[in-house]
Amino acid sequence: MPEKLILVLNGPNLNLLGKREPGIYGSATLDDIGAALTERGTALGFAVEVRQSNHEGDLVDGLHDAQARGAHAVLLNAGAYTHTSVALLDAIRAIEVPVIEVHLSNPHAREAFRHTSWVAPAAKGTIAGFGADSYLLALEAAARL
Amino acid sequence: MPEKLILVLNGPNLNLLGKREPGIYGSATLDDIGAALTERGTALGFAVEVRQSNHEGDLVDGLHDAQARGAHAVLLNAGAYTHTSVALLDAIRAIEVPVIEVHLSNPHAREAFRHTSWVAPAAKGTIAGFGADSYLLALEAAARL
Amino acid sequence: MPEKLILVLNGPNLNLLGKREPGIYGSATLDDIGAALTERGTALGFAVEVRQSNHEGDLVDGLHDAQARGAHAVLLNAGAYTHTSVALLDAIRAIEVPVIEVHLSNPHAREAFRHTSWVAPAAKGTIAGFGADSYLLALEAAARL
Amino acid sequence: MPEKLILVLNGPNLNLLGKREPGIYGSATLDDIGAALTERGTALGFAVEVRQSNHEGDLVDGLHDAQARGAHAVLLNAGAYTHTSVALLDAIRAIEVPVIEVHLSNPHAREAFRHTSWVAPAAKGTIAGFGADSYLLALEAAARL
Amino acid sequence: MPEKLILVLNGPNLNLLGKREPGIYGSATLDDIGAALTERGTALGFAVEVRQSNHEGDLVDGLHDAQARGAHAVLLNAGAYTHTSVALLDAIRAIEVPVIEVHLSNPHAREAFRHTSWVAPAAKGTIAGFGADSYLLALEAAARL
Amino acid sequence: MPEKLILVLNGPNLNLLGKREPGIYGSATLDDIGAALTERGTALGFAVEVRQSNHEGDLVDGLHDAQARGAHAVLLNAGAYTHTSVALLDAIRAIEVPVIEVHLSNPHAREAFRHTSWVAPAAKGTIAGFGADSYLLALEAAARL
Amino acid sequence: MPEKLILVLNGPNLNLLGKREPGIYGSATLDDIGAALTERGTALGFAVEVRQSNHEGDLVDGLHDAQARGAHAVLLNAGAYTHTSVALLDAIRAIEVPVIEVHLSNPHAREAFRHTSWVAPAAKGTIAGFGADSYLLALEAAARL
Amino acid sequence: MPEKLILVLNGPNLNLLGKREPGIYGSATLDDIGAALTERGTALGFAVEVRQSNHEGDLVDGLHDAQARGAHAVLLNAGAYTHTSVALLDAIRAIEVPVIEVHLSNPHAREAFRHTSWVAPAAKGTIAGFGADSYLLALEAAARL
Amino acid sequence: MPEKLILVLNGPNLNLLGKREPGIYGSATLDDIGAALTERGTALGFAVEVRQSNHEGDLVDGLHDAQARGAHAVLLNAGAYTHTSVALLDAIRAIEVPVIEVHLSNPHAREAFRHTSWVAPAAKGTIAGFGADSYLLALEAAARL
Amino acid sequence: MPEKLILVLNGPNLNLLGKREPGIYGSATLDDIGAALTERGTALGFAVEVRQSNHEGDLVDGLHDAQARGAHAVLLNAGAYTHTSVALLDAIRAIEVPVIEVHLSNPHAREAFRHTSWVAPAAKGTIAGFGADSYLLALEAAARL
Amino acid sequence: MPEKLILVLNGPNLNLLGKREPGIYGSATLDDIGAALTERGTALGFAVEVRQSNHEGDLVDGLHDAQARGAHAVLLNAGAYTHTSVALLDAIRAIEVPVIEVHLSNPHAREAFRHTSWVAPAAKGTIAGFGADSYLLALEAAARL
Amino acid sequence: MPEKLILVLNGPNLNLLGKREPGIYGSATLDDIGAALTERGTALGFAVEVRQSNHEGDLVDGLHDAQARGAHAVLLNAGAYTHTSVALLDAIRAIEVPVIEVHLSNPHAREAFRHTSWVAPAAKGTIAGFGADSYLLALEAAARL
Repeated sequence: MPEKLILVLNGPNLNLLGKREPGIYGSATLDDIGAALTERGTALGFAVEVRQSNHEGDLVDGLHDAQARGAHAVLLNAGAYTHTSVALLDAIRAIEVPVIEVHLSNPHAREAFRHTSWVAPAAKGTIAGFGADSYLLALEAAARL
Repeated sequence: MPEKLILVLNGPNLNLLGKREPGIYGSATLDDIGAALTERGTALGFAVEVRQSNHEGDLVDGLHDAQARGAHAVLLNAGAYTHTSVALLDAIRAIEVPVIEVHLSNPHAREAFRHTSWVAPAAKGTIAGFGADSYLLALEAAARL
Repeated sequence: MPEKLILVLNGPNLNLLGKREPGIYGSATLDDIGAALTERGTALGFAVEVRQSNHEGDLVDGLHDAQARGAHAVLLNAGAYTHTSVALLDAIRAIEVPVIEVHLSNPHAREAFRHTSWVAPAAKGTIAGFGADSYLLALEAAARL
Repeated sequence: MPEKLILVLNGPNLNLLGKREPGIYGSATLDDIGAALTERGTALGFAVEVRQSNHEGDLVDGLHDAQARGAHAVLLNAGAYTHTSVALLDAIRAIEVPVIEVHLSNPHAREAFRHTSWVAPAAKGTIAGFGADSYLLALEAAARL
Repeated sequence: MPEKLILVLNGPNLNLLGKREPGIYGSATLDDIGAALTERGTALGFAVEVRQSNHEGDLVDGLHDAQARGAHAVLLNAGAYTHTSVALLDAIRAIEVPVIEVHLSNPHAREAFRHTSWVAPAAKGTIAGFGADSYLLALEAAARL
Repeated sequence: MPEKLILVLNGPNLNLLGKREPGIYGSATLDDIGAALTERGTALGFAVEVRQSNHEGDLVDGLHDAQARGAHAVLLNAGAYTHTSVALLDAIRAIEVPVIEVHLSNPHAREAFRHTSWVAPAAKGTIAGFGADSYLLALEAAARL
Repeated sequence: MPEKLILVLNGPNLNLLGKREPGIYGSATLDDIGAALTERGTALGFAVEVRQSNHEGDLVDGLHDAQARGAHAVLLNAGAYTHTSVALLDAIRAIEVPVIEVHLSNPHAREAFRHTSWVAPAAKGTIAGFGADSYLLALEAAARL
Repeated sequence: MPEKLILVLNGPNLNLLGKREPGIYGSATLDDIGAALTERGTALGFAVEVRQSNHEGDLVDGLHDAQARGAHAVLLNAGAYTHTSVALLDAIRAIEVPVIEVHLSNPHAREAFRHTSWVAPAAKGTIAGFGADSYLLALEAAARL
Repeated sequence: MPEKLILVLNGPNLNLLGKREPGIYGSATLDDIGAALTERGTALGFAVEVRQSNHEGDLVDGLHDAQARGAHAVLLNAGAYTHTSVALLDAIRAIEVPVIEVHLSNPHAREAFRHTSWVAPAAKGTIAGFGADSYLLALEAAARL
Repeated sequence: MPEKLILVLNGPNLNLLGKREPGIYGSATLDDIGAALTERGTALGFAVEVRQSNHEGDLVDGLHDAQARGAHAVLLNAGAYTHTSVALLDAIRAIEVPVIEVHLSNPHAREAFRHTSWVAPAAKGTIAGFGADSYLLALEAAARL
Repeated sequence: MPEKLILVLNGPNLNLLGKREPGIYGSATLDDIGAALTERGTALGFAVEVRQSNHEGDLVDGLHDAQARGAHAVLLNAGAYTHTSVALLDAIRAIEVPVIEVHLSNPHAREAFRHTSWVAPAAKGTIAGFGADSYLLALEAAARL
Repeated sequence: MPEKLILVLNGPNLNLLGKREPGIYGSATLDDIGAALTERGTALGFAVEVRQSNHEGDLVDGLHDAQARGAHAVLLNAGAYTHTSVALLDAIRAIEVPVIEVHLSNPHAREAFRHTSWVAPAAKGTIAGFGADSYLLALEAAARL
């Protein structure tokens, strides 16, 4: 029997993770995080698939795709689109797959415009501020849903 | 002599129409709406072409395309980009083809952030709240321009 | 069997239609619009009754009257009261007759204070920006309800 | 010796009381409330007169009338005009008769725009949220002034 | 040859002038002001007609009437409707007769909500703060137009 | 059979009642009010218990206590915490005992920051502005619940 | 016996009057206006002194000077400082000479930032929108004080 | 060697957990959560101590206490004080012990006033929306610090 | 004859003074400041009593206590409650003892939310920004009252 | 060895001190204050120089001058420019001499626009509300720097 | 040795340059500007590469690309995305290549929503309002970096 | 034939250039910049005249002077007056000489209050963020006008 899918969607600039402002975002790359998620996901009985795009529309497509493939959950770090994308809010509401909002840093400890989240109102929950561990904790949370 | 073109542009999440929150958006799919528009358009002497994309840039491209092809009018349901896209406002102002804003539901009866429209200030007019009929009424309006 | 009634309520300054700022509002008078509505209404099997008043309370009374007479629908162009009248909002909510908001011009292409509508949150739908055709399109929409 | 007058002024849509949204406003009609007020008023030695109008100007006229007739107090349920009428504020300030603000439901438990009252700053006091009993409690309060 | 008409429109609560808060509004009644305006108007060759209403719609009607009768100018003291009536703004814009905004007291020296005027943006000019003299100065200004 | 309990909770500075700013709050002390409430409560068949604390947490505790003791109703004059305490809002929502908001003076006739009430959205109703009578009217209202 | 003084203070850019944007400000220069004011002032028994400065502090000095010289009144057209100068507000409040606010054009018919006046709250009254006549009407108003 | 301490501080109304609005907060009581935390904490090598108070000052005291006792971390569910308590912000900044913000429900999916957090700007991170699991995930996060 | 009392009330987190963020608050402890105040107070003929609490209600109690004991003045450093406590504003207004607002650092040079003070509107005066000297200067100011 | 300089800069309208609104500002003139400052300054070993100007630019010049002359401190009562002058903020930041903000009255107990200070964010500290004593306390504070 | 790269990124609707609203944007096409930039760039020793896209994500990609290729500078005219794209702000901060904000027209002389720039806070500098010359001046500025 | 004049106006605190916060403003003095401008201006055939004042009125005077002397252009670095001076906006609009807004640093990368510019809406264009080079680039831009 195939494993249940957990889709991990990453938004703009997260392809630079580990190279960009490590003081804020840590030194782990997105590939490092993906490997850790896959390892832990396998142990929990889930297939983990990690994507990244700088395009808002690709994140919307990804959420639709999660629904079409019957995914168990989505971990969504929408990066800057968190703060501007009503389309993401609508997409999360349009699917039944639960979505967990993830952030490496704590947006509320940063600029005021990062205190607004269009993802949060429709998300199952939020985990923020623990660096790469935010993803792993979100995986644990997803596994328990 | 070829028929005049009416281009129908649909924004993010509208590909899920008929499957997503039917209580708000009705059970007709975008294909159903396209068929009805084509039938009525033919009767009125217009070719109707329906597109959908989750990418803001594709909608901008579509508006430019309408101008390049000498379209008679655009019916634009920009979905969530209605509320966030200054690029759409600029694109509508940059072309001479009249654009009619269309919404399935009534945005003013929903959340406050849906009360802002970047499409409306440059649109010829707005038709909202009549479900799939919003498109057909907009087609009638376009035909009279 | 008597025809079903469609009541068309018009707010302040619309008695000057055709004489006032024709660049914005067109040259058709309210009588011209009434004649066109009656003709098309008859074809659709509806009696159309057109009223105008500069008094906010008369519009509230008119909405109550629509309920008392079992009207099929109300077409409401509340003019400036659109932007200031909570009483209209309450009146629309207090009756069961569906109300369609109508505007000759596109309020969102005008001053910011015209972007607020107290009618819209309780209306079935909105048609705006097509001049006298806004009324006729609203009549079509009403007939389909 | 004639009884002292207590004038009860009711604003827009309150003529529909008992028929409109009974879940919010209860099933008592304005006539029912008037009868109860008259009975209790008589016991307390007051003549009670109940009026209703959908016109803002009629409420202003009514407040002036209370002053002209030397009324003991006014009970004012201004309905939606509570939230928009500076004219009512001025009228209450312009007379010496004490005015008690009455609401059937609790405006602060409803939409944000109902949290603003132009009546309250000039009123003697406010009683809200007890349905038809709000009027009777206000009558008790008025009797003790 | 008949005299040119100057119409003086007064809004809510101004019928109480001279009786209400004389510390703010002075002790002259509206009749006193009317008599002074008529006397001075006659000397300047104008017929002066003074009206008062507590109804917003009556002021709109009055402005339309000024246009229909070819009035030379309107002096408008809209009272509290100054601060809430978009309908008055539209009415002033809908007519060609110049309108001069008049206030007995200085609205900017009072509550913040009196600092907004819907009359001012469309008025020819404003005269405020000189008590009954505000009307007479406005008459002088009107005569020079 | 024991009497039903009506708990009267008073917030910060109300211990000074009768000594502090009698022009605003009257000369009755909290003990005077308690005596009047007890007398009237007994007549209506209720035990009345009056508490006062300057601590926000004590008011939350008091609301929980009302629930634990099966009280019939709470009369709550939260004083300044009315305007700042989300904890009180949550506490009222967390219990089933109906809470009536009471104020000696009319908060809307005072500073703007007193126009916000965190108690009101969850309260059954509000009685304000009648001095010590506000409590007695609230007791009447509570008795009828 | 010396004539009573009326001091006319003009703020920034008014030295360009007649040369700058005549469509808004008219073609009369400040000297023309001064001549007309002097002529009319003499007839009314007042000495008129006209000053202009582009410096906010000079206008404050001018107001102090009016007090020191026992002036009858000040006509103040503070130009752009009207909208930014709290110092002018304080200066007007610090003297006993009545100050009349004057504007050539109607600030409320222009940009939003011209709707705020720091002069108005402390001024005796305001006359705006009548071009050079605004000064002459203000002189009449001043003479009657 | 004694275990390291993890202090779990709970704010107002959380003593009612499991009894109050289970649709929002779930049916687990604070004791249930404490038991689960203790069990998991022991496995991870931590002593877990759970406190609750309806007093803002007690939460401040608790944070100071964590510092004094050299705690490893604090899990803080400040309840309604999350949204109003600058004192908590200061207390978190005043200590060196890392604080993790915990919420049972997702505050961003609730009323607007719950979108503001005074805890978040100083917290290490936030975990919200997973019911009782929010505490357990926070414990995992704390263990990794 | 007993000395006159000067009560020094300190709010949340000030018990950590000297240990917490010395870069902002200095290295003097509250005991150090108390000793200096006592010494200088004695020289000026005053008894100085210093209290600290993390509870808002205790500060309210303290202000009442100052009144009950006939204190000469209160020096109040309300810490974070400065920015949130309407109860403190009311308490200061409810007593006759003059209250001087004290801050170690300059709140206006810090975060925007520290620019609001509920203490200031009712305080006799404010001294801020001089570290421990702020208290001593306030004592001097108090002595001169 | 020459004394160290303390420069006392006073803004608009402070030349009227003692003559203007003594209820707010006291009856001491600026000369009286200067004499007291000089006497006390001499005792403390400082030369005190007092200036006043109604020109914003003069205050900026004065701050530069303090830097050029190596002053020990500036006492700055910027009057109304406190609330509008970004140039003063920049000037204080541009020099190294510490600046102490002084006010006779308590700005936070007055109009809302006086609650904003452009001086405070860059000042060493603030002393307000003690009348002429504010200056003397500021001199003490300056002497200890 | 290869020339240093200057990348010129253009956002939505700039492909229509020269055809769209020449009164605002001038008659030069993007190709014309590219040719002029290349000519001047060559003279200064730089390779110039011009791109345009209607997709926000392509601009983010382009900024990353500049970093990957070790570009000397980016000239960025983000068009409408200037006003809405937090993703661009993050991308500019994520790279080390200096970015110069370019606009053909002056955004501050246009609609209010164009006064907000998400590019500006992270840009090296801004050049706006000189039509096609804005690009050439930016090239000069870039060359001096 | 005399050279064409380019007037360079500098506002408050710019006299301290090179001495004040070199990290933000660079180490070049205003004299250094003037010399560079003169040298480059001569090469381009322009006379360059540099002025500085801390007085808002002097900048207004300077703009008028540019008009009177038929200057080719003004380079205006209004310093802090950029953010507060409506008088400068009016002055720029009152003259025909084109004005180029210049800033050493990038105001949008600094405090929020520096994001508002009263100069920009009337300026030909803006050059900001290139230190002393901002002036030289503005000179190039001016030469091309």
